[in-house]
Amino acid sequence: MSRVNREKLERTLKRRFFYTPSFEIYGGVSGLYDLGPPGCQLQNNLIQLWREHFIMEENMLQVDGSMLTPYDVLKTSGHVDKFTDWMCQNSKTGEYYRADHLIEQTLKKRLLDKNTDPHDVKNIENILVTLDGFTGSELNRIMQKYRIHDPVTNDVLGPLAAFNLMFQTKIGASGQLKAFLRPETAQGQFLNFNKLLDINQGRIPFASASIGKSFRNEISPRSGLLRVREFLMAEIEHFVDPLNKSHEKFNQVLDEEIPLLSRRSQESDESIPVRMTIGEAVKSGVVENETLGYFMARVHKFLLKVGINRNKFRFRQHLSNEMAHYATDCWDGEILTTYGWIECIGCADRAAFDLTVHSKKTGRSLTVKQKLDTPKERTEWALEVNKKLFGSKFKQKAKVIESILSNFSQDELISKHEELNKSGKFSCQINDEVVELDKSLITIKMKSTLQHVREYIPNVIEPSFGLGRIIYCIFDHCFQVRADNEARTFFSFPLQIAPIKVCIATISNNSNFPSIVKKISQILRKKEIYFKTDDSNTSIGKKYARNDELGAPFVITIDFETMKDDSVTLRERNSMKQVRGSIDDVISVIDRMTHNPEAKWENSTLQLSPIKI
Amino acid sequence: MSRVNREKLERTLKRRFFYTPSFEIYGGVSGLYDLGPPGCQLQNNLIQLWREHFIMEENMLQVDGSMLTPYDVLKTSGHVDKFTDWMCQNSKTGEYYRADHLIEQTLKKRLLDKNTDPHDVKNIENILVTLDGFTGSELNRIMQKYRIHDPVTNDVLGPLAAFNLMFQTKIGASGQLKAFLRPETAQGQFLNFNKLLDINQGRIPFASASIGKSFRNEISPRSGLLRVREFLMAEIEHFVDPLNKSHEKFNQVLDEEIPLLSRRSQESDESIPVRMTIGEAVKSGVVENETLGYFMARVHKFLLKVGINRNKFRFRQHLSNEMAHYATDCWDGEILTTYGWIECIGCADRAAFDLTVHSKKTGRSLTVKQKLDTPKERTEWALEVNKKLFGSKFKQKAKVIESILSNFSQDELISKHEELNKSGKFSCQINDEVVELDKSLITIKMKSTLQHVREYIPNVIEPSFGLGRIIYCIFDHCFQVRADNEARTFFSFPLQIAPIKVCIATISNNSNFPSIVKKISQILRKKEIYFKTDDSNTSIGKKYARNDELGAPFVITIDFETMKDDSVTLRERNSMKQVRGSIDDVISVIDRMTHNPEAKWENSTLQLSPIKI
Repeated sequence: MSRVNREKLERTLKRRFFYTPSFEIYGGVSGLYDLGPPGCQLQNNLIQLWREHFIMEENMLQVDGSMLTPYDVLKTSGHVDKFTDWMCQNSKTGEYYRADHLIEQTLKKRLLDKNTDPHDVKNIENILVTLDGFTGSELNRIMQKYRIHDPVTNDVLGPLAAFNLMFQTKIGASGQLKAFLRPETAQGQFLNFNKLLDINQGRIPFASASIGKSFRNEISPRSGLLRVREFLMAEIEHFVDPLNKSHEKFNQVLDEEIPLLSRRSQESDESIPVRMTIGEAVKSGVVENETLGYFMARVHKFLLKVGINRNKFRFRQHLSNEMAHYATDCWDGEILTTYGWIECIGCADRAAFDLTVHSKKTGRSLTVKQKLDTPKERTEWALEVNKKLFGSKFKQKAKVIESILSNFSQDELISKHEELNKSGKFSCQINDEVVELDKSLITIKMKSTLQHVREYIPNVIEPSFGLGRIIYCIFDHCFQVRADNEARTFFSFPLQIAPIKVCIATISNNSNFPSIVKKISQILRKKEIYFKTDDSNTSIGKKYARNDELGAPFVITIDFETMKDDSVTLRERNSMKQVRGSIDDVISVIDRMTHNPEAKWENSTLQLSPIKI
Repeated sequence: MSRVNREKLERTLKRRFFYTPSFEIYGGVSGLYDLGPPGCQLQNNLIQLWREHFIMEENMLQVDGSMLTPYDVLKTSGHVDKFTDWMCQNSKTGEYYRADHLIEQTLKKRLLDKNTDPHDVKNIENILVTLDGFTGSELNRIMQKYRIHDPVTNDVLGPLAAFNLMFQTKIGASGQLKAFLRPETAQGQFLNFNKLLDINQGRIPFASASIGKSFRNEISPRSGLLRVREFLMAEIEHFVDPLNKSHEKFNQVLDEEIPLLSRRSQESDESIPVRMTIGEAVKSGVVENETLGYFMARVHKFLLKVGINRNKFRFRQHLSNEMAHYATDCWDGEILTTYGWIECIGCADRAAFDLTVHSKKTGRSLTVKQKLDTPKERTEWALEVNKKLFGSKFKQKAKVIESILSNFSQDELISKHEELNKSGKFSCQINDEVVELDKSLITIKMKSTLQHVREYIPNVIEPSFGLGRIIYCIFDHCFQVRADNEARTFFSFPLQIAPIKVCIATISNNSNFPSIVKKISQILRKKEIYFKTDDSNTSIGKKYARNDELGAPFVITIDFETMKDDSVTLRERNSMKQVRGSIDDVISVIDRMTHNPEAKWENSTLQLSPIKI
């Protein structure tokens, strides 16, 4: 789609109230948008399909967690320290810029500039590829080196500062409980791990899922619906044995062909993804394991179902400097729009990061206990606590300290053992405080045990969806211009995604029509088919055009014949074909097609009479 | 339900992970809860039914608005100044108390105390009835008069202070844009009024609706799911001509019988609601108009559909001192639980309050323009502005000032006219500033005009639902104890509300069963029937008990017969009746009953063979 058409698209979306800037009559707030009726309806349909495709298909355990999240949780998860962007300010105008976006924007312009030194061109190209993962000091170096100034005023900008992207607030009357609006739904799932495992009867693998709003206090959001401060996410946390990441249903997706742009390809300057089946991808090691592969295939199937163009999608693997602080591997599902490739889905391997940090912080075990068929003898370093002394010395803290000690690795135990032998004591960091432990409290020695149970912290594979971004991409990919008339546009939404399935239109505002409209409405309601009515005094051609802009797949037209023989015209949106039949027959066609994504217009309308236009 | 059973209920809900305190492993935060899988699924079902019952039935225009809301919007709506509770602190312990709750709790105890003066008893009873609407100074007076102290320590408490209940945050890098988390979804609908009216082709009445989370920073929330800081609401804003509050479909609900506790009854110390049809209620003036009555009837129907006990519901009209700052009349839909009568729904007449204040503040007209069939001549005071001078004097502000002037009432115009005649000028409050206007800028005179259009700000009837509270009430009303065994409990959820429709249980963990489970699973998935599987090594009796606690209406049992002839047992939850038939026939029964709320077990299972237990 061209940029001209992008403007046309966004005008149409606003005029038909798919969305609007929030608080527009107050001047709006950048990065905040409201969905109007058709946008909202489309979002409902997308959520419904997502639930069927993912939650129902895998019997996932859905959780609806709190958005308000206390400081401690997000400090532990790493978000307080690492969920930041680098920004700089123009001290004259007061304007803030996000450093990486500013560098990208400025350097892209330099690339187009014929006067740029060819040596610089190569450097700039390298920078642009890897920019996403740069640290503050690297960004600073580039700002200096390439003399990157305010793009509007050309003023020199102030020094870079880290800006935490979470919205802060306080809970309760005293105002002492610091909290944030969640930056992701995932934490709420991790914290409930034990309960989820319990209702899954202690078995693994299983997945939990959440659908809900998350928040990100963007520095200076532009690019409309694609960069917002409040957004709808759907996240899956699939908990899996770290020693076995195979997937029971992997053979069902083996042949799904997917465009992959691997880390290695990107490092060799490739930008065209390789199409291969997910079976090959896992076999050849491009995708690390079956579980990750299974979800990538399922994500791909889902996107095609909801209206994403097969040729405008790719999975791109994160470069090693680009990953979030919790991830060990990540493939982004990216969709091509007029704004470029947009990250809409992240399939990350979070390993045991989150469960481990929360367990350490709270002293609560977050593990799977697997009964071993044959017990295993194991000789290893072990730490024993003198419970009595320990309890009386540390009181309520005893439990947390014990839990942290119990998480010591073999290497840590060896070094602490030496310290204990040498100086009779060792010290240990417990959250914010240093605790000293001596021989009377602690014994460390080699010990043989017969293990009947294997206890481990599971790994997490996380497919995370930005539903709001996917909605924009659906708009982008489904926006069409009629071949014979540039001014006439329509949305080719798949039937299950279309906000309104059918419009009941009258050929005029004749006073006999309202009772027919009412009759048809009642039937549609009973069948749970969303519809709208257009009984205004407008030409039928204009009504069709209006309807195309809403993307309703069908129009039922009531005319003077209807009064005589109960027949109506049924018009299909993409082909503009029309057929004629009784009200009941026409509604049957709509009903069948709406509930069956595979149904074809030609086959479904065999019993109705075609109309030549 | 007894208090003993309340504890049993809440233990069951937590054990089966219907819900849990959020961040429990971190010690939790009072007033924040997560829904686990069955709670979440029940919530999904409730939302789905709500959308069908309200949005679809009336073709309401759904809006999904931002939760983050700038200060200005909520200052204008009155929430910054009036969305407060009165609190007081124990300066020794640091504990905060909500004054009205503390008074209620203390005075209720005094009523039970035999030593309380009979004269006080009467006074206390009066206070308790009208407490909801008391001002800060009234609450203070009662605290003093009845010497109300800290209920735990008996310390004297500090003075009352108003506490705003909105969570505050800041938007953007500069931190200069103050914002709140929305206290209701309504404002997002009001601000979009013009766009909604436009896509409704300028016609009125119509309704918009929003489903989403809102926030309330409760002072010291107790009573579990009923008083929370983050909650799911569903709100309808029905825009209507203030001169005509009839409702097109009122005759469809005429005979709906509803328990009403009117303001007048409460003022005469009545506490038992009067059952009458909504037709009578509107005719006799108990309920003010058809639109309000229509929605009250629809609300009633909805609650019965989702599992609320008909005998534990009432509509109670607000006393005149009890209403929110924006309301002119309000009926609360209250549900009886072990916590007493709980306000779950408010049906408020917000009149033109919100649209008027937002229009005044922004200078944007939020009106309906109705074409008159016969133009009307009207002579009235009119204000004219010298556009040229006005524009050059006030620049960007000109528009706002003009809009405020154009909203002057006839009385205001008369008084300003006198001022202008007397002193040649008048002054006028424009937001935070006072502007002086003289004869060169303004003319005020009587004028006759022929009006072709009637322009008015519509009134708003608002049915507002606390879905989270309704969910708790469904739990409360559906929790049942088996007649023959006190230890056995079940949830008698209506089919459409039940989180899981069917459980597939195996009689043992025989290795031939998993393939049959898989086969049944696939059929259920295709029919979009939510199910779970219990193939653990537990007795079938225990599986039935577990299933009852989840409230799944059906269990399909696979046993050794199934391997031979494909037959399974179908068990119904409430009656514990069992029938036998082929897998296909049994699933047909479930499918039909799930999609048809009226279907009866007896009629639906005629073709299956009953089993005697």
